[in-house]
Amino acid sequence: MNLALLTEADFIGPDRVQLTGRRFDHLATILGSEVGDQVPVGVENGDIGTGTLIQRDAEAAELAITLDQSPPEPLPLTLVLAMPRPKMFRRVLQTVAALGVKEIWLINAYKVEKSFWQTPWLGPDALRENLTLGLEQARDTRMPQVHIRQRFKPFVEDELPALLAQRPGLVAHPGTDQPCPSHLSSPATLCIGPEGGFIPYEVDKLVAAGCQSVHLGRRILRVETAVPVLIGRLYDGCGY
Amino acid sequence: MNLALLTEADFIGPDRVQLTGRRFDHLATILGSEVGDQVPVGVENGDIGTGTLIQRDAEAAELAITLDQSPPEPLPLTLVLAMPRPKMFRRVLQTVAALGVKEIWLINAYKVEKSFWQTPWLGPDALRENLTLGLEQARDTRMPQVHIRQRFKPFVEDELPALLAQRPGLVAHPGTDQPCPSHLSSPATLCIGPEGGFIPYEVDKLVAAGCQSVHLGRRILRVETAVPVLIGRLYDGCGY
Repeated sequence: MNLALLTEADFIGPDRVQLTGRRFDHLATILGSEVGDQVPVGVENGDIGTGTLIQRDAEAAELAITLDQSPPEPLPLTLVLAMPRPKMFRRVLQTVAALGVKEIWLINAYKVEKSFWQTPWLGPDALRENLTLGLEQARDTRMPQVHIRQRFKPFVEDELPALLAQRPGLVAHPGTDQPCPSHLSSPATLCIGPEGGFIPYEVDKLVAAGCQSVHLGRRILRVETAVPVLIGRLYDGCGY
Repeated sequence: MNLALLTEADFIGPDRVQLTGRRFDHLATILGSEVGDQVPVGVENGDIGTGTLIQRDAEAAELAITLDQSPPEPLPLTLVLAMPRPKMFRRVLQTVAALGVKEIWLINAYKVEKSFWQTPWLGPDALRENLTLGLEQARDTRMPQVHIRQRFKPFVEDELPALLAQRPGLVAHPGTDQPCPSHLSSPATLCIGPEGGFIPYEVDKLVAAGCQSVHLGRRILRVETAVPVLIGRLYDGCGY
Protein backbone atom coordinates (compact mmCIF):
# COMPACT_ATOMS: atom_id res chain seq x y z
CA MET A 1 0.00 0.00 0.00
CA ASN A 2 1.94 3.03 -1.29
CA LEU A 3 -1.11 5.21 -0.73
CA ALA A 4 -4.24 4.85 1.39
CA LEU A 5 -7.22 5.30 -0.93
CA LEU A 6 -9.97 7.23 0.86
CA THR A 7 -13.71 7.26 0.19
CA GLU A 8 -16.43 9.58 1.49
CA ALA A 9 -17.24 7.05 4.21
CA ASP A 10 -13.78 7.57 5.75
CA PHE A 11 -14.28 11.30 6.38
CA ILE A 12 -15.14 12.41 9.91
CA GLY A 13 -14.42 16.07 9.16
CA PRO A 14 -13.44 18.28 6.23
CA ASP A 15 -9.77 17.27 6.49
CA ARG A 16 -10.08 14.36 8.93
CA VAL A 17 -10.40 10.68 8.08
CA GLN A 18 -10.65 7.55 10.16
CA LEU A 19 -9.05 4.37 8.81
CA THR A 20 -10.15 0.90 9.92
CA GLY A 21 -9.81 -2.64 8.60
CA ARG A 22 -7.22 -3.44 5.94
CA ARG A 23 -5.80 0.07 5.66
CA PHE A 24 -5.53 0.44 9.43
CA ASP A 25 -3.85 -2.96 9.76
CA HIS A 26 -1.33 -1.99 7.10
CA LEU A 27 -0.64 1.31 8.83
CA ALA A 28 -0.34 -0.29 12.26
CA THR A 29 1.41 -3.58 11.58
CA ILE A 30 3.36 -3.18 8.31
CA LEU A 31 4.24 0.52 8.40
CA GLY A 32 4.20 0.64 12.19
CA SER A 33 3.02 4.25 11.98
CA GLU A 34 2.84 6.25 15.20
CA VAL A 35 1.13 9.54 16.03
CA GLY A 36 2.88 12.28 14.05
CA ASP A 37 3.92 10.00 11.19
CA GLN A 38 2.87 10.89 7.68
CA VAL A 39 1.54 8.52 5.00
CA PRO A 40 0.54 9.15 1.38
CA VAL A 41 -3.23 9.35 0.92
CA GLY A 42 -5.58 9.96 -1.98
CA VAL A 43 -9.31 10.45 -2.37
CA GLU A 44 -11.07 8.09 -4.77
CA ASN A 45 -11.30 9.86 -8.15
CA GLY A 46 -9.71 12.92 -6.54
CA ASP A 47 -6.33 14.35 -5.54
CA ILE A 48 -3.50 12.80 -3.57
CA GLY A 49 -1.50 14.19 -0.69
CA THR A 50 -0.41 13.43 2.85
CA GLY A 51 -2.13 12.14 5.94
CA THR A 52 -0.69 12.88 9.38
CA LEU A 53 -1.55 10.33 12.06
CA ILE A 54 -3.10 12.28 14.92
CA GLN A 55 -4.74 9.52 16.93
CA ARG A 56 -4.61 5.75 17.00
CA ASP A 57 -6.20 2.97 19.05
CA ALA A 58 -6.40 -0.80 18.60
CA GLU A 59 -8.81 -0.71 15.67
CA ALA A 60 -8.70 2.70 14.05
CA ALA A 61 -6.40 5.55 13.15
CA GLU A 62 -7.35 9.18 12.66
CA LEU A 63 -5.50 11.20 10.04
CA ALA A 64 -5.38 14.92 9.23
CA ILE A 65 -5.05 15.10 5.46
CA THR A 66 -3.83 17.66 2.96
CA LEU A 67 -4.45 17.03 -0.75
CA ASP A 68 -2.09 18.97 -2.97
CA GLN A 69 -1.33 16.86 -6.06
CA SER A 70 -3.34 15.45 -8.92
CA PRO A 71 -3.12 11.67 -9.43
CA PRO A 72 -1.02 10.24 -12.29
CA GLU A 73 -2.46 10.58 -15.79
CA PRO A 74 -4.78 7.74 -16.83
CA LEU A 75 -3.48 5.44 -19.57
CA PRO A 76 -5.53 6.17 -22.73
CA LEU A 77 -6.10 2.45 -23.23
CA THR A 78 -9.35 0.51 -23.27
CA LEU A 79 -8.66 -3.13 -22.45
CA VAL A 80 -10.94 -5.84 -23.86
CA LEU A 81 -9.99 -9.02 -22.07
CA ALA A 82 -11.30 -12.54 -22.46
CA MET A 83 -12.24 -13.60 -18.93
CA PRO A 84 -9.08 -15.13 -17.40
CA ARG A 85 -8.78 -18.08 -15.01
CA PRO A 86 -9.88 -16.82 -11.55
CA LYS A 87 -6.53 -16.92 -9.75
CA MET A 88 -4.96 -15.06 -12.68
CA PHE A 89 -7.94 -12.70 -12.98
CA ARG A 90 -7.33 -11.27 -9.53
CA ARG A 91 -3.69 -10.44 -10.30
CA VAL A 92 -4.56 -9.06 -13.74
CA LEU A 93 -7.13 -6.71 -12.18
CA GLN A 94 -4.56 -5.37 -9.74
CA THR A 95 -1.95 -5.05 -12.48
CA VAL A 96 -4.12 -3.16 -14.98
CA ALA A 97 -5.35 -0.85 -12.23
CA ALA A 98 -1.73 -0.17 -11.21
CA LEU A 99 -0.82 0.53 -14.85
CA GLY A 100 -3.53 3.18 -15.15
CA VAL A 101 -6.07 1.41 -17.38
CA LYS A 102 -9.51 2.92 -16.69
CA GLU A 103 -11.80 0.98 -19.02
CA ILE A 104 -11.86 -2.82 -18.79
CA TRP A 105 -14.28 -4.98 -20.77
CA LEU A 106 -14.40 -8.62 -19.67
CA ILE A 107 -15.76 -10.72 -22.52
CA ASN A 108 -16.45 -14.34 -23.27
CA ALA A 109 -14.55 -16.39 -25.84
CA TYR A 110 -14.63 -19.99 -27.04
CA LYS A 111 -11.66 -20.96 -24.85
CA VAL A 112 -12.98 -19.22 -21.72
CA GLU A 113 -14.14 -22.04 -19.44
CA LYS A 114 -17.73 -21.53 -18.24
CA SER A 115 -16.56 -21.97 -14.65
CA PHE A 116 -14.41 -18.82 -14.91
CA TRP A 117 -17.60 -16.73 -14.82
CA GLN A 118 -18.55 -18.26 -11.47
CA THR A 119 -15.59 -16.75 -9.60
CA PRO A 120 -16.43 -14.64 -6.53
CA TRP A 121 -13.75 -12.20 -7.78
CA LEU A 122 -16.39 -10.89 -10.21
CA GLY A 123 -18.60 -9.64 -7.38
CA PRO A 124 -18.77 -5.82 -7.11
CA ASP A 125 -16.98 -5.71 -3.74
CA ALA A 126 -14.24 -8.10 -4.88
CA LEU A 127 -13.72 -6.18 -8.12
CA ARG A 128 -13.50 -2.97 -6.18
CA GLU A 129 -11.10 -4.43 -3.62
CA ASN A 130 -8.63 -5.68 -6.24
CA LEU A 131 -8.83 -2.49 -8.30
CA THR A 132 -8.20 -0.52 -5.10
CA LEU A 133 -5.12 -2.63 -4.33
CA GLY A 134 -3.79 -1.80 -7.80
CA LEU A 135 -4.51 1.92 -7.42
CA GLU A 136 -2.87 2.00 -3.98
CA GLN A 137 0.20 0.22 -5.38
CA ALA A 138 0.60 2.86 -8.10
CA ARG A 139 -0.53 5.87 -6.00
CA ASP A 140 -3.48 6.47 -8.27
CA THR A 141 -7.02 7.42 -7.27
CA ARG A 142 -9.10 7.07 -10.43
CA MET A 143 -11.22 3.93 -10.09
CA PRO A 144 -11.36 1.88 -13.33
CA GLN A 145 -14.71 0.88 -14.82
CA VAL A 146 -15.25 -2.83 -15.39
CA HIS A 147 -17.85 -3.91 -17.96
CA ILE A 148 -18.87 -7.58 -17.97
CA ARG A 149 -20.11 -9.09 -21.25
CA GLN A 150 -20.75 -12.81 -21.08
CA ARG A 151 -21.74 -13.09 -24.76
CA PHE A 152 -19.03 -12.55 -27.36
CA LYS A 153 -21.06 -11.93 -30.52
CA PRO A 154 -23.44 -9.22 -29.23
CA PHE A 155 -20.51 -7.35 -27.69
CA VAL A 156 -18.36 -7.50 -30.82
CA GLU A 157 -21.21 -6.68 -33.20
CA ASP A 158 -23.21 -4.15 -31.19
CA GLU A 159 -20.79 -2.45 -28.75
CA LEU A 160 -17.21 -2.80 -29.98
CA PRO A 161 -17.59 -0.75 -33.21
CA ALA A 162 -18.65 2.29 -31.15
CA LEU A 163 -15.59 1.87 -28.89
CA LEU A 164 -13.32 1.60 -31.94
CA ALA A 165 -14.77 4.76 -33.47
CA GLN A 166 -13.06 6.80 -30.75
CA ARG A 167 -9.98 4.64 -30.23
CA PRO A 168 -8.53 2.26 -32.86
CA GLY A 169 -8.34 -1.37 -31.86
CA LEU A 170 -5.63 -3.99 -31.80
CA VAL A 171 -6.07 -7.70 -31.24
CA ALA A 172 -3.00 -9.61 -30.06
CA HIS A 173 -2.92 -12.75 -32.19
CA PRO A 174 0.12 -15.01 -32.77
CA GLY A 175 -1.03 -15.92 -36.28
CA THR A 176 -0.64 -12.56 -38.03
CA ASP A 177 2.51 -11.08 -39.61
CA GLN A 178 1.88 -7.50 -38.47
CA PRO A 179 4.04 -6.63 -35.46
CA CYS A 180 2.43 -4.76 -32.58
CA PRO A 181 3.06 -1.00 -32.83
CA SER A 182 4.79 1.06 -30.16
CA HIS A 183 5.11 4.74 -29.23
CA LEU A 184 1.36 5.41 -29.06
CA SER A 185 0.23 8.51 -27.24
CA SER A 186 -3.34 8.54 -28.49
CA PRO A 187 -6.18 6.39 -27.14
CA ALA A 188 -6.35 2.77 -28.28
CA THR A 189 -8.33 -0.39 -27.61
CA LEU A 190 -6.43 -3.60 -26.97
CA CYS A 191 -8.14 -7.00 -27.20
CA ILE A 192 -6.44 -9.91 -25.47
CA GLY A 193 -7.68 -13.48 -25.82
CA PRO A 194 -7.86 -16.32 -23.32
CA GLU A 195 -5.18 -18.97 -22.70
CA GLY A 196 -4.91 -20.66 -26.09
CA GLY A 197 -5.95 -17.44 -27.83
CA PHE A 198 -9.04 -16.34 -29.72
CA ILE A 199 -10.22 -18.89 -32.29
CA PRO A 200 -10.07 -17.81 -35.97
CA TYR A 201 -13.83 -17.05 -35.98
CA GLU A 202 -13.33 -14.67 -33.05
CA VAL A 203 -10.31 -12.96 -34.64
CA ASP A 204 -12.32 -12.54 -37.86
CA LYS A 205 -15.20 -10.99 -35.92
CA LEU A 206 -12.84 -8.61 -34.06
CA VAL A 207 -11.20 -7.61 -37.35
CA ALA A 208 -14.61 -7.17 -38.98
CA ALA A 209 -15.52 -4.85 -36.09
CA GLY A 210 -12.47 -2.73 -36.94
CA CYS A 211 -9.56 -4.23 -34.99
CA GLN A 212 -6.13 -4.71 -36.50
CA SER A 213 -4.55 -8.09 -35.78
CA VAL A 214 -0.97 -7.83 -34.47
CA HIS A 215 1.59 -10.28 -33.10
CA LEU A 216 4.08 -10.16 -30.26
CA GLY A 217 6.82 -12.29 -31.76
CA ARG A 218 7.24 -16.05 -31.47
CA ARG A 219 6.86 -16.32 -27.73
CA ILE A 220 3.50 -17.31 -26.29
CA LEU A 221 2.94 -15.31 -23.11
CA ARG A 222 0.46 -15.75 -20.29
CA VAL A 223 -2.21 -13.07 -20.15
CA GLU A 224 -0.77 -11.65 -16.93
CA THR A 225 2.58 -11.22 -18.73
CA ALA A 226 1.25 -10.13 -22.13
CA VAL A 227 -0.78 -7.24 -20.64
CA PRO A 228 2.15 -5.38 -19.02
CA VAL A 229 4.48 -6.21 -21.94
CA LEU A 230 1.98 -4.76 -24.42
CA ILE A 231 1.31 -1.68 -22.30
CA GLY A 232 5.05 -1.09 -21.88
CA ARG A 233 5.43 -1.37 -25.63
CA LEU A 234 2.39 0.64 -26.73
CA TYR A 235 2.74 3.51 -24.27
CA ASP A 236 6.48 3.86 -23.76
CA GLY A 237 5.80 7.58 -24.25
CA CYS A 238 3.66 7.58 -21.10
CA GLY A 239 6.54 6.73 -18.84
CA TYR A 240 6.27 2.99 -19.29
CA MET B 1 2.75 -26.18 -21.38
CA ASN B 2 2.94 -25.00 -25.01
CA LEU B 3 5.97 -27.19 -25.55
CA ALA B 4 7.39 -30.21 -23.74
CA LEU B 5 11.00 -29.42 -22.89
CA LEU B 6 13.15 -32.54 -23.27
CA THR B 7 16.46 -33.40 -21.64
CA GLU B 8 18.94 -36.17 -22.43
CA ALA B 9 17.38 -38.31 -19.72
CA ASP B 10 14.12 -38.45 -21.69
CA PHE B 11 15.69 -40.08 -24.77
CA ILE B 12 15.20 -43.81 -25.24
CA GLY B 13 16.39 -43.73 -28.85
CA PRO B 14 17.80 -41.24 -31.38
CA ASP B 15 14.33 -39.82 -32.12
CA ARG B 16 12.35 -41.43 -29.30
CA VAL B 17 11.56 -39.92 -25.91
CA GLN B 18 9.57 -41.16 -22.94
CA LEU B 19 7.67 -38.58 -20.88
CA THR B 20 6.69 -39.20 -17.26
CA GLY B 21 5.64 -37.07 -14.29
CA ARG B 22 4.44 -33.49 -14.86
CA ARG B 23 4.82 -33.50 -18.63
CA PHE B 24 3.05 -36.85 -18.96
CA ASP B 25 0.23 -35.69 -16.68
CA HIS B 26 -0.22 -32.56 -18.77
CA LEU B 27 -0.26 -34.61 -21.97
CA ALA B 28 -2.68 -37.17 -20.57
CA THR B 29 -5.08 -35.11 -18.46
CA ILE B 30 -4.98 -31.55 -19.80
CA LEU B 31 -4.28 -32.13 -23.49
CA GLY B 32 -5.90 -35.55 -23.45
CA SER B 33 -3.47 -36.66 -26.14
CA GLU B 34 -4.01 -40.07 -27.74
CA VAL B 35 -1.73 -42.26 -29.87
CA GLY B 36 -1.16 -40.42 -33.17
CA ASP B 37 -1.58 -36.95 -31.71
CA GLN B 38 1.21 -34.42 -32.14
CA VAL B 39 2.56 -32.03 -29.52
CA PRO B 40 5.25 -29.33 -29.73
CA VAL B 41 8.55 -30.45 -28.23
CA GLY B 42 11.97 -28.94 -27.79
CA VAL B 43 15.35 -30.15 -26.55
CA GLU B 44 16.91 -28.16 -23.73
CA ASN B 45 19.32 -25.64 -25.32
CA GLY B 46 18.50 -27.16 -28.71
CA ASP B 47 15.92 -27.09 -31.48
CA ILE B 48 12.15 -27.35 -31.33
CA GLY B 49 9.78 -29.47 -33.37
CA THR B 50 7.00 -32.01 -33.08
CA GLY B 51 6.47 -35.14 -31.04
CA THR B 52 4.04 -37.80 -32.22
CA LEU B 53 2.53 -39.94 -29.49
CA ILE B 54 3.23 -43.55 -30.42
CA GLN B 55 2.54 -45.31 -27.14
CA ARG B 56 0.94 -44.47 -23.84
CA ASP B 57 0.18 -46.24 -20.58
CA ALA B 58 -0.94 -45.04 -17.15
CA GLU B 59 2.39 -43.42 -16.25
CA ALA B 60 4.37 -42.73 -19.38
CA ALA B 61 4.04 -41.67 -23.00
CA GLU B 62 6.44 -42.48 -25.82
CA LEU B 63 6.94 -39.89 -28.54
CA ALA B 64 8.67 -39.98 -31.92
CA ILE B 65 10.18 -36.54 -32.37
CA THR B 66 11.35 -34.43 -35.28
CA LEU B 67 13.28 -31.22 -34.54
CA ASP B 68 13.17 -28.78 -37.45
CA GLN B 69 13.13 -25.23 -36.00
CA SER B 70 15.46 -23.15 -33.92
CA PRO B 71 14.05 -21.73 -30.68
CA PRO B 72 13.12 -18.02 -30.45
CA GLU B 73 16.00 -15.56 -30.21
CA PRO B 74 17.22 -14.87 -26.68
CA LEU B 75 16.52 -11.40 -25.31
CA PRO B 76 19.87 -9.55 -25.13
CA LEU B 77 19.10 -8.45 -21.60
CA THR B 78 20.96 -9.24 -18.39
CA LEU B 79 18.61 -8.85 -15.43
CA VAL B 80 20.02 -7.86 -12.04
CA LEU B 81 17.20 -8.34 -9.58
CA ALA B 82 17.05 -7.68 -5.86
CA MET B 83 15.80 -10.95 -4.38
CA PRO B 84 11.97 -10.73 -4.38
CA ARG B 85 9.51 -12.05 -1.81
CA PRO B 86 9.30 -15.86 -2.32
CA LYS B 87 5.77 -16.13 -3.69
CA MET B 88 6.56 -13.34 -6.15
CA PHE B 89 10.00 -14.78 -6.91
CA ARG B 90 8.51 -17.96 -8.35
CA ARG B 91 6.27 -16.04 -10.76
CA VAL B 92 9.06 -13.64 -11.72
CA LEU B 93 11.35 -16.57 -12.58
CA GLN B 94 8.70 -18.07 -14.87
CA THR B 95 7.97 -14.68 -16.43
CA VAL B 96 11.57 -13.73 -17.22
CA ALA B 97 12.23 -17.21 -18.62
CA ALA B 98 9.13 -16.84 -20.84
CA LEU B 99 10.33 -13.42 -22.00
CA GLY B 100 13.67 -14.83 -23.13
CA VAL B 101 16.02 -13.42 -20.48
CA LYS B 102 19.06 -15.74 -20.24
CA GLU B 103 21.18 -14.10 -17.55
CA ILE B 104 19.65 -13.44 -14.14
CA TRP B 105 21.63 -12.12 -11.19
CA LEU B 106 19.82 -12.29 -7.85
CA ILE B 107 21.37 -9.79 -5.47
CA ASN B 108 20.85 -8.56 -1.96
CA ALA B 109 19.68 -5.05 -1.08
CA TYR B 110 18.88 -3.18 2.12
CA LYS B 111 15.14 -3.74 1.71
CA VAL B 112 15.45 -7.45 0.87
CA GLU B 113 14.24 -9.28 3.99
CA LYS B 114 16.79 -11.85 5.21
CA SER B 115 14.06 -14.50 5.19
CA PHE B 116 13.69 -14.16 1.40
CA TRP B 117 17.02 -15.97 0.99
CA GLN B 118 15.65 -18.97 2.90
CA THR B 119 13.03 -19.84 0.28
CA PRO B 120 13.13 -23.38 -1.13
CA TRP B 121 12.50 -21.79 -4.56
CA LEU B 122 16.23 -20.96 -4.61
CA GLY B 123 17.20 -24.64 -4.63
CA PRO B 124 18.72 -25.84 -7.93
CA ASP B 125 15.78 -28.17 -8.73
CA ALA B 126 13.18 -25.52 -7.88
CA LEU B 127 14.97 -22.87 -9.94
CA ARG B 128 15.19 -25.27 -12.85
CA GLU B 129 11.53 -26.27 -12.54
CA ASN B 130 10.26 -22.70 -12.63
CA LEU B 131 12.60 -21.66 -15.45
CA THR B 132 11.41 -24.74 -17.38
CA LEU B 133 7.77 -23.73 -16.88
CA GLY B 134 8.59 -20.31 -18.33
CA LEU B 135 10.45 -21.79 -21.30
CA GLU B 136 7.62 -24.24 -22.00
CA GLN B 137 5.10 -21.38 -21.86
CA ALA B 138 7.03 -19.41 -24.49
CA ARG B 139 8.17 -22.42 -26.59
CA ASP B 140 11.79 -21.69 -25.85
CA THR B 141 14.55 -24.20 -25.06
CA ARG B 142 17.51 -22.12 -23.92
CA MET B 143 17.82 -22.50 -20.13
CA PRO B 144 18.61 -19.21 -18.36
CA GLN B 145 21.57 -18.94 -16.01
CA VAL B 146 20.82 -17.78 -12.47
CA HIS B 147 23.64 -16.25 -10.42
CA ILE B 148 23.03 -15.79 -6.70
CA ARG B 149 24.92 -13.01 -4.90
CA GLN B 150 23.89 -12.53 -1.30
CA ARG B 151 26.26 -9.58 -0.72
CA PHE B 152 25.47 -6.33 -2.52
CA LYS B 153 28.77 -4.44 -2.25
CA PRO B 154 31.15 -7.15 -3.54
CA PHE B 155 28.83 -7.83 -6.49
CA VAL B 156 28.46 -4.17 -7.45
CA GLU B 157 32.15 -3.34 -6.97
CA ASP B 158 33.83 -6.50 -8.24
CA GLU B 159 31.47 -8.13 -10.76
CA LEU B 160 29.01 -5.55 -12.10
CA PRO B 161 31.58 -3.30 -13.87
CA ALA B 162 32.67 -6.25 -16.03
CA LEU B 163 29.05 -6.98 -16.97
CA LEU B 164 28.50 -3.31 -17.85
CA ALA B 165 31.59 -3.24 -20.06
CA GLN B 166 29.78 -5.47 -22.56
CA ARG B 167 26.25 -4.23 -22.02
CA PRO B 168 25.33 -0.78 -20.65
CA GLY B 169 23.31 -0.75 -17.45
CA LEU B 170 20.09 0.86 -16.36
CA VAL B 171 18.73 1.04 -12.83
CA ALA B 172 15.01 1.63 -12.48
CA HIS B 173 14.66 4.29 -9.78
CA PRO B 174 11.61 6.52 -9.17
CA GLY B 175 13.76 9.41 -7.96
CA THR B 176 15.55 10.33 -11.19
CA ASP B 177 14.33 12.63 -13.98
CA GLN B 178 15.73 10.55 -16.85
CA PRO B 179 12.96 8.51 -18.50
CA CYS B 180 13.67 4.87 -19.33
CA PRO B 181 14.76 4.47 -22.98
CA SER B 182 12.98 2.30 -25.51
CA HIS B 183 13.74 0.73 -28.90
CA LEU B 184 16.92 -1.04 -27.80
CA SER B 185 18.22 -3.82 -29.99
CA SER B 186 21.66 -4.11 -28.45
CA PRO B 187 22.50 -5.91 -25.19
CA ALA B 188 21.72 -4.14 -21.93
CA THR B 189 21.76 -4.76 -18.20
CA LEU B 190 18.69 -3.84 -16.18
CA CYS B 191 18.84 -3.53 -12.39
CA ILE B 192 15.55 -3.72 -10.51
CA GLY B 193 15.31 -3.08 -6.79
CA PRO B 194 13.20 -4.69 -4.08
CA GLU B 195 9.75 -3.59 -2.90
CA GLY B 196 10.41 -0.06 -1.64
CA GLY B 197 13.29 0.33 -4.10
CA PHE B 198 17.04 0.55 -3.74
CA ILE B 199 18.15 2.95 -1.02
CA PRO B 200 20.14 6.05 -2.18
CA TYR B 201 23.45 4.41 -1.16
CA GLU B 202 22.65 1.45 -3.41
CA VAL B 203 21.62 3.63 -6.34
CA ASP B 204 24.85 5.62 -5.92
CA LYS B 205 26.89 2.41 -5.94
CA LEU B 206 25.09 1.13 -9.05
CA VAL B 207 25.64 4.46 -10.81
CA ALA B 208 29.30 4.49 -9.71
CA ALA B 209 29.62 1.02 -11.27
CA GLY B 210 28.39 2.47 -14.56
CA CYS B 211 24.59 2.22 -14.48
CA GLN B 212 22.33 5.01 -15.66
CA SER B 213 19.43 5.78 -13.32
CA VAL B 214 16.07 5.94 -15.14
CA HIS B 215 12.44 6.29 -14.07
CA LEU B 216 9.20 4.71 -15.20
CA GLY B 217 6.86 7.61 -14.59
CA ARG B 218 4.92 8.38 -11.42
CA ARG B 219 3.42 4.97 -10.89
CA ILE B 220 5.07 2.62 -8.44
CA LEU B 221 4.86 -0.90 -9.87
CA ARG B 222 5.40 -4.28 -8.25
CA VAL B 223 8.53 -6.07 -9.43
CA GLU B 224 6.46 -8.71 -11.23
CA THR B 225 4.76 -5.90 -13.20
CA ALA B 226 7.79 -3.65 -13.68
CA VAL B 227 9.86 -6.44 -15.28
CA PRO B 228 7.52 -7.18 -18.22
CA VAL B 229 6.66 -3.47 -18.64
CA LEU B 230 10.35 -2.56 -18.87
CA ILE B 231 11.12 -5.44 -21.23
CA GLY B 232 8.16 -4.49 -23.44
CA ARG B 233 9.46 -0.93 -23.49
CA LEU B 234 13.17 -1.60 -23.94
CA TYR B 235 12.90 -4.31 -26.56
CA ASP B 236 9.80 -3.40 -28.56
CA GLY B 237 12.03 -4.10 -31.56
CA CYS B 238 12.31 -7.74 -30.50
CA GLY B 239 8.63 -8.43 -30.98
CA TYR B 240 7.62 -7.28 -27.52
